[in-house]
Formats: sequence, C-alpha cells, structure tokens
Amino acid sequence: MQNFVLHTPTKILFGKNQIAGLAQQIPAKAHILITYGGGSVKKNGVLDQVYSALAGRNVQEFSGIEPNPTYETLMKAVELVRAENIDFLLAVGGGSVVDGTKFIAAAAHYTADRDPWHILKTVGREVTGAIPLGCVLTLPATGSESNIGAVITRKNSGDKQHFHSSYVQPKFAVLDPTVTYSLPPRQIANGVVDAFVHTIEQYLTYPVDAKVQDRFAEGLLLTLLEDGPRALAEPENYAVRANVMWSATLALNGLIGAGVPQDWATHMLGHELTAMHGLDHAQTLAIVLPALLVEKKTQKRAKLLQYAERVWGLRDGSEDSRIDAAIAATRAFFETMGVPTRLSDYQLDGSSIPALLDKLHQHGMTALGEHQDITLEVSQRIYQAAR
Amino acid sequence: MQNFVLHTPTKILFGKNQIAGLAQQIPAKAHILITYGGGSVKKNGVLDQVYSALAGRNVQEFSGIEPNPTYETLMKAVELVRAENIDFLLAVGGGSVVDGTKFIAAAAHYTADRDPWHILKTVGREVTGAIPLGCVLTLPATGSESNIGAVITRKNSGDKQHFHSSYVQPKFAVLDPTVTYSLPPRQIANGVVDAFVHTIEQYLTYPVDAKVQDRFAEGLLLTLLEDGPRALAEPENYAVRANVMWSATLALNGLIGAGVPQDWATHMLGHELTAMHGLDHAQTLAIVLPALLVEKKTQKRAKLLQYAERVWGLRDGSEDSRIDAAIAATRAFFETMGVPTRLSDYQLDGSSIPALLDKLHQHGMTALGEHQDITLEVSQRIYQAAR
Repeated sequence: MQNFVLHTPTKILFGKNQIAGLAQQIPAKAHILITYGGGSVKKNGVLDQVYSALAGRNVQEFSGIEPNPTYETLMKAVELVRAENIDFLLAVGGGSVVDGTKFIAAAAHYTADRDPWHILKTVGREVTGAIPLGCVLTLPATGSESNIGAVITRKNSGDKQHFHSSYVQPKFAVLDPTVTYSLPPRQIANGVVDAFVHTIEQYLTYPVDAKVQDRFAEGLLLTLLEDGPRALAEPENYAVRANVMWSATLALNGLIGAGVPQDWATHMLGHELTAMHGLDHAQTLAIVLPALLVEKKTQKRAKLLQYAERVWGLRDGSEDSRIDAAIAATRAFFETMGVPTRLSDYQLDGSSIPALLDKLHQHGMTALGEHQDITLEVSQRIYQAAR
Repeated sequence: MQNFVLHTPTKILFGKNQIAGLAQQIPAKAHILITYGGGSVKKNGVLDQVYSALAGRNVQEFSGIEPNPTYETLMKAVELVRAENIDFLLAVGGGSVVDGTKFIAAAAHYTADRDPWHILKTVGREVTGAIPLGCVLTLPATGSESNIGAVITRKNSGDKQHFHSSYVQPKFAVLDPTVTYSLPPRQIANGVVDAFVHTIEQYLTYPVDAKVQDRFAEGLLLTLLEDGPRALAEPENYAVRANVMWSATLALNGLIGAGVPQDWATHMLGHELTAMHGLDHAQTLAIVLPALLVEKKTQKRAKLLQYAERVWGLRDGSEDSRIDAAIAATRAFFETMGVPTRLSDYQLDGSSIPALLDKLHQHGMTALGEHQDITLEVSQRIYQAAR
C-alpha cells in the first residue's frame, strides 16, 4: 500500500425526505445562492422541496448551468455572487451543476488581478479560499458531491479542463434516491457508466497489495453491474436507485483511491472527445476504456486477471482468454446500459484524431496513466482502436 | 437501505514516516497535552518521534492511561488540562488511550455543576463541546481514532460504559503501520478479533438490500481473515500490517454501518465480562460472538447464509449445515489467532452469570441486538452457552 492522506469531511444525508432537513446544514444568517441547470429540478419538484426547506431564509437563485458547465455561463454567477455578497452556495442538480458551483465558489474571491480561468490553468493550486457550498444531488454519477474536483469547459476555445482544491469540497450532500426516479434513462445509464469507470481508473492499474481498496472497488463494480441495468428496467425501485446512488458517491470520494496507483487516462482522452464533438462524458468513457484496456493489457495484466475473476467470475481458460473475456464483458455491459462503445456509433470516423491529439498536447496530456507511459503515440493508437 | 447521516471528518495520514508531518495538523499556538499509556511508546521510539515532530511547540504530557481506561485516572488529566489551559490533546497509543483522551476532552469543559461521570450516564447526549484532539495510533483495533465513541471504566463500581459525541471526533489520525511491528502478539491478535467483530456487529443482522455496505463489510472480513494470521507470523511484513491497520479503522468509522441495522449485543455482553473479570476486550468478544450467533440463528438466517457463502466460501450442503460451519469457522479463526472462545478457557465456570446479568440490568441492557429482542433471559442463555 502506498502512503496516503484521506480527508472526507462532506457530511452525507442519505435517504427519503432528507431535503427537508437542509436548513440545519446552512448557517442561519447565510445569504444563499441556489444554483441549478435547466428546468428538470423545477419539473420534478426538487426545487420546490428546496425552497420549502429554506422557507424564511435569505435566498437567491442562478439557473442555466449547462451539462459540461462553461466558464462563460459561470462567470455570470460569479458577478452575481460578488454584487450580492452571497456567502453560501447551494448546488441543486447533477455533477455539472456541482462542478460549476465549485468553480463559482473558488472564482468569486480569486486573486483580483487574475481572470479566474487561471484556476483551470493551474489545476487549482493557487486557490486559497472559496465560498462554502453544499449540494442536493439529483443525478448519481460524478461523485463531485463529496470531493474536491471539478471539470469546466471554455466554450470559445473548446477546452475542457479540471481543477482540484480542498476549499471547494462541499460541506454536505443530500442524496435522496427518490429524486432520481424521473431522470431520463440516458442520464441514469451515463451515471452508471461514469461511476463504473471512476472505479476502474483507481483499480485496474497494478497491484500494491492494498486488499481493502481492491475489495471495496470490486464491491462497487459488482453493485453497479447488478443494479445498473435494474435501475433502467425498474425506475422506481428504491433499493436499486439507492445502491446506484451510494456507489456513485463512494466511487469518487477519495476512499477507494487512497493508497493505490491511479490511471485517469480514459478520462483525459474522453474529455477531448466531449470538448470537440459534444459527446456525453459517459459516452466518451465507454468508447475509450475498452480500447485502452486492450492497449495496456501487458502493464495491467495482474489486475486484469483479478478483475476477470472477482468481478466477472472468469476462472477457466488461459490467462489471455480470461483478460479478453473481461474486456469484452466490460464493453458489453456499457452496451447493455445503452451506451455505445465505438466512435463510429456516434458518426465519427476518426478523422478528428489528429486534432484530438493536438488538444491533448496543448493540455500537457503527453504522459498519462499510472505509469505515465501513455504518450501521444499511445493515445493515437487508443483513439484509432476505438473507431 | 435505511436512511442515514454519515460524517467522517477525521483526516487520515497513513503510511511510513507520517508522524513527522504531525505539527502541521495542530494549530501553531496550541498548548498541547500528549496523552499516553504505559511505557511501550517510550520503548518503541514512537514518543520520541512525536516529540521530534513537535519540536519548538508548547507541549506537556500525561501518562498512565491504562487498558480499559478508568475514570479515576482520567480525572487527574482533566484537572491538569483545566489548571494548565491545555487547548489541544494528542493521544499517542491504542484505542484505550484514544478513548480516554476523548473523555478528557469532553470532561474538561463539562457543565461545572456535574461530575463528568454524567457523560457516561447520559451516553454523551449532554456534551456541548470538547477540547480538539488528534491521535497517533499504535495499535489497530478499536477504530476509535476516527469515530465519535469511547468506552470508559469506573474502577470503584466495576462499570464499563460508553458515550458518543461528535465533539470528540479526532481532527486527524496518524496511522503508521511500522509502529505496530513491536506490538506483542496478544495485542495484534486482540486487535484483529476486535476489528472482525466490529464488522460483524454491523453486517450479521438482517438484509436491507444495502449491497455496497455488505460488500465493504465482506471485504474487511476477508482481509482480516487473510492477513490477521500473517500479522502474527510475519510481524514486519509492511503490507500485511498496513492492511490490518486500515481494516481496523474502516471497520468502525461509520461507513459500513451507515444505512444498515446494527447489533452490538456481543459488545454489551462482553463489556460486563471485562468489567467483572478483567478479560481483554477482544477475549470477551471471542467468547460471546459464537454463542450469540448460535442463539440468534433464526433471526440472522439470511445474513448468516450470505456470510457463509461470501466470506467462507460455503456453498454446498443444507442451509443449516452451512450456517453451522460458518459459525464454527468463525470460532476456529479466533482460536487460530490465539484468542480462546470459551469462558472455561479463562478459568471461569459460569458462576458469575447472575452477577453479570445484574450488571446488564443496571446498565439498561435488557433489550439488545438489531431487533431489541435480546432480553436478560436471552443474554443468560448466551453466557451459559459460552461456558
């Protein structure tokens, strides 16, 4: 096991009717800005529940945070926060709203002489404070509700970049599985794939004899395999939605990645696909991961064999056949969830691969993966294999 | 899954040489009291490491906190804290030192007109503040380093009682597996049994379709089964000690118990054995648990079958035979760890059972377990079966 520091201070309020207890989590005199996306939280009644819970409190709102939240939109919220002296942010939505709100929180008080895009350029290293935030999660997927990371897109340049800062870790996260009942199947499917790949990024590397982390990761993967398809088939099965929601949070709160190597190349290659072609985040992961696992079979051999056995029950046949079967099963799982796994499924023929590699180069993504050996040349092979 | 609130704010600093970074975790101007037990942290050099890390800081010490820390000893520290205006407590030791330090933290500023034993009588409900504390853990076992609970013994009355308060949750816990190399085998064995039973208390109840919690618990149990005996056989195997240490912390930081029923009857029956006969805490758990599982076979049936299959690989034979085999294997595991599982192994013939039941009655422990159906009569049968 590698050395690690793990800090998971976000208070989790999980279950039915937890939104009602929201007000106790926010300082009594706070000037609160509720942030959200489009109209779904209005349609499904979540925003009404939030307003009821905050009755009598000093509340304003900012809406219109888009999927893959953009700097351009978020800077309008930053202006509002500064003008109105907002001192608590409440994100109501999925990972994009939470990520966007983290950026607002960090940008509002960022060094006056810097454009806040600098936060992304420096991956959050120079953030020295942020407005406190909490969230009401409506879409289990990104884990953003209880971690320090965020991914922001710049519309005018097509850049999709991430930053990390402990200052933007949410104070609390309300997770009520019933608010996910009304989500479109595509969003549930994306969330399950996203959580699955988050887990894989921290698990399918090389062994460091970290038995607990491995078994926790396998526990999340098995749960998502079992209950992901059921979440589509039985949208109002509370237990299933609860298991998916809790898995997605634990997949990226720091716990399973503490003390083990991490990969994240699938995410980096995927971000460029979203930024250039507008694919859903999870779609890009479903495209890149199988191709990456084939490419990195040698380096990931020991963990691929463990994954094949413990997650897919593959114990017979040669080692190579078990590894191939596990990768094929992973691809088939994404397809079962309704998320296609080839560029061609999205009407992309690979002609943009040189431009994607240029973007990776621009973003300094030239030595990715747990061994920093995914060079641009390797990334090119992965993109090509994903056609 | 049941509703839950989960808050795990203790920052974990895990690995080799983490003690060296201690000073950064404590406010610069703090007046620190280091608390510890006997001489082992002096002999093994841990106390020296702590003093080196805190060079130049304002530090005093209080030693002599015993296993099963007593109110009588701890009240001396409370006087010292009050007299010297201590404002940070650093526990250096195992669960007893951490538990004792939590009591000191809560008692030092407890309502002036109350004797702090009142904290135990009211299970911590009336604690409204505490001196902040951190810890350097030397013995993986109780999980106290990252939770809100503590168990305190009153010498003059033979009472062993617990309290809980979020105010005594450690700010940080330093977990360096190398400091456990010098522990006597009995303490390692006790720690493994303690962590194993903590996990069982939150797992072997009845199913609520909480797949992640179940798999995480099973992951801890499997790790302790594999690496517990190896921790005895290979005392300086870093990976093994690291896995045991991390398992013990995660067994009782709130995570695996969030959203599931919990039992804890084994602990309550065990506490009376320690208080009356001076048995090690883990010894009492090893005595009570197998007898309790036999007694509660019907109520725990579904989870016992899951435990038999997933933890012990028992898939063949009748359901009853698998359950019996799982309970027998659990007992055999404790014995393998060198912790005997019968009262008679400790020269106890059961003649104190009436007195033990009187103590349970005095402490209000008359409806224990996840169904609150372990009455004094049931407890009597369990004690008798454990002879």
